[in-house]
Amino acid sequence: MEDYGRFLALLASALLVGFVSVILSLVWVFHYREGLSWDGSLGEFNWHPVLIITGFVFIQGIAIIVYRLPWTWKCSKLLMKFIHAGLNTIAMILAIVSMVAVFEFHNAKNIPNMYSLHSWIGLTAVIFYSLQLFLGFAVFLLPFAPVHLRVALMPIHVYSGLTIFATVIATALMGITEKLIFALKSPAYSASPPEATLVNCLGLLLVIFGSLILWMASRPHWKRPPAENAKILRPTEATPDGTEVESTLTKSSNADKSDLRSNTEAARKQNIKFDEAGQRSTM
Amino acid sequence: MEDYGRFLALLASALLVGFVSVILSLVWVFHYREGLSWDGSLGEFNWHPVLIITGFVFIQGIAIIVYRLPWTWKCSKLLMKFIHAGLNTIAMILAIVSMVAVFEFHNAKNIPNMYSLHSWIGLTAVIFYSLQLFLGFAVFLLPFAPVHLRVALMPIHVYSGLTIFATVIATALMGITEKLIFALKSPAYSASPPEATLVNCLGLLLVIFGSLILWMASRPHWKRPPAENAKILRPTEATPDGTEVESTLTKSSNADKSDLRSNTEAARKQNIKFDEAGQRSTM
Repeated sequence: MEDYGRFLALLASALLVGFVSVILSLVWVFHYREGLSWDGSLGEFNWHPVLIITGFVFIQGIAIIVYRLPWTWKCSKLLMKFIHAGLNTIAMILAIVSMVAVFEFHNAKNIPNMYSLHSWIGLTAVIFYSLQLFLGFAVFLLPFAPVHLRVALMPIHVYSGLTIFATVIATALMGITEKLIFALKSPAYSASPPEATLVNCLGLLLVIFGSLILWMASRPHWKRPPAENAKILRPTEATPDGTEVESTLTKSSNADKSDLRSNTEAARKQNIKFDEAGQRSTM
Repeated sequence: MEDYGRFLALLASALLVGFVSVILSLVWVFHYREGLSWDGSLGEFNWHPVLIITGFVFIQGIAIIVYRLPWTWKCSKLLMKFIHAGLNTIAMILAIVSMVAVFEFHNAKNIPNMYSLHSWIGLTAVIFYSLQLFLGFAVFLLPFAPVHLRVALMPIHVYSGLTIFATVIATALMGITEKLIFALKSPAYSASPPEATLVNCLGLLLVIFGSLILWMASRPHWKRPPAENAKILRPTEATPDGTEVESTLTKSSNADKSDLRSNTEAARKQNIKFDEAGQRSTM
């Protein structure tokens, strides 16, 4: 791997920043707020920031870069797809539980639901995340989708994943802003009490975490090595196997595969397309 | 250009969404708020959302995709760099004026400055944007930087540009959230008065605008054609000119250029690196 040391330093930084964010969210709710409970009180609301930061930011971030970890490159692509999908499923469950906590708290206190920009964009992000997860399972994990569909959808899957992740962080920042304005009364948010400083720092850490994940995810030379793809680049070697994107395909797609390799120039172009789409790592 | 029709449809959508966002910000401040003025009143504060949405979101978004417009591909790269830098300079000036408006309003009303997460992340974004603009001028526009420095910095320039753009939109969403909570009292934000609905829609449009710009900017096949780069891919043709990244370089970098082409495999790898970095279009 090129720049292995730099990758490890960035990974360690991302893990540290993500971990500290989760800790700060716990310090926030236990030291400055009402702790955690499940009884319609503010303690139930507090599950919302804790679970969003733990699941929808930290775990989703790890799920995004899981293919980048060099020590997983000896594992099968299918196993890594299960880990990627599994982490995203955990993130999604935590996000849904955290939303239930807010709705139950609002209903218990007769606070309207879904009036704020935070709630509009947050719910939109959860809906798109569910769609992304469902399509990811159906197209890239299950062995039924034809290769041309996978190739066509992979750039959209990658782009959607990163855009939803960025949107989730933006939504968390809006949520932090809302909560600090509503919760801090004397002293107010504008008086910068210690809680405000702590939670502002938490918001900054979320931006840094997101930036680190997006950098690691978008470096082409840190992708899982395209061992199979490389064979398309050298069609004269006449290797019989297909690209990585096909690794869980059934034999029904063999026609597609042979089409792909029917001519050197087409194969080269197709390979560039695969590379550009970043489909090699499902990320 | 591949998918020319689709590109035009997305460009038209982005321009429409961006334009409607600017209009909605004007409807907000003129129809629901105190209009625009420069006297320390709320009318001065209102320049902040209008100039941020016009300059720091809309114009910055256009600056990001300006290399993608196919009808500019016959123009020189240097001219396009000037347009890219010029649009970003306009965006930066509008962002700074919009910040002056808020500071003057806060000072006139004895409201503390820089206490909110919105202000922390917003100021950080402006500082990074200034650095990005300065480094962009120094490294990619002026003809002094050696090619290896340009190649090394281009991936960082592209990543920083897109990350700052996304962060600016996230900051705008926080600002909208703050303003609606502070400004709407009877009826409150939670009662969803028409102003809240309008401005929530404005926030959604900003997310859609950002998503469209990021999609257009990250499609490799919509990049400005790599006419010069292609010559590195075919070193046997012995073309004397360098890559596009060198188009404003002085002769002092000729040693670097010949180094780059000293061997076929190295040139191919270098070309892949150029392609991956997306340096061909400074975007």
